[in-house]
Amino acid sequence: MTRNGEAVPGEDVASYDVFSRLCPSRPVLEHVTGRWGSLVLAALEDGPVRFNDLRRRVDGVSQKSLAQALQALERDGFVTRNQLTVFPLRVEYSLTPSGKDVSVKLLELIAQVEASMDTVLASRQRFDGNAPTGDAA
Amino acid sequence: MTRNGEAVPGEDVASYDVFSRLCPSRPVLEHVTGRWGSLVLAALEDGPVRFNDLRRRVDGVSQKSLAQALQALERDGFVTRNQLTVFPLRVEYSLTPSGKDVSVKLLELIAQVEASMDTVLASRQRFDGNAPTGDAA
Repeated sequence: MTRNGEAVPGEDVASYDVFSRLCPSRPVLEHVTGRWGSLVLAALEDGPVRFNDLRRRVDGVSQKSLAQALQALERDGFVTRNQLTVFPLRVEYSLTPSGKDVSVKLLELIAQVEASMDTVLASRQRFDGNAPTGDAA
Repeated sequence: MTRNGEAVPGEDVASYDVFSRLCPSRPVLEHVTGRWGSLVLAALEDGPVRFNDLRRRVDGVSQKSLAQALQALERDGFVTRNQLTVFPLRVEYSLTPSGKDVSVKLLELIAQVEASMDTVLASRQRFDGNAPTGDAA
């Protein structure tokens, strides 16, 4: 990236650095790892999904938050919005090739987090001072 | 996880599901992928780092946000806080084995995002209707 953060397509990959506050890669990482963005990308892994199905899959997301996450991911080129011309008219969302590249890495991260959960919950018990001591309560 | 979200250590890995609103793995994913949590984990990849050095590395983070991110990651068992007993007294942060497992996946995701940036920026130009058309302005 250039000093003022105005990176342009065609620059060397190595010039992007999420650690740098002004690098345009930082907000992209935030879209990809954001509360809903990460789950949306992961949910699209198996193929095109309709908005309402996506909303059911990403349990807890509001209509507005889902629309915002999808729009940010579409703008970044990770997700495509496909208006089907069959009746009933409907819109499907799917991953682009670069969205697929990112979602593969994201799914590996999610799998690692899920696999770490026993350790996490045990650590929390210790941290919160509620670890079993072996003494009867 | 159980129906009420009160998962306990020792449960089967496959029972954790970040897509489920009440699953305890979802907030853990958010700590790991959060705005600062992700950069903190990535910054600790090369070994123990002191608070102020970490703050400089994670460009733009406030003292308070960094402390909060570190505490959440420490509670989850991904980061250890080491109080050194040499003078001058200082505190270092480092990754635990499970923190290392997660940060490896995170770094791969970050590398993929940085590698996708040319595509992202080109996509944004199209999305925003500013794509070069070949016509002189």
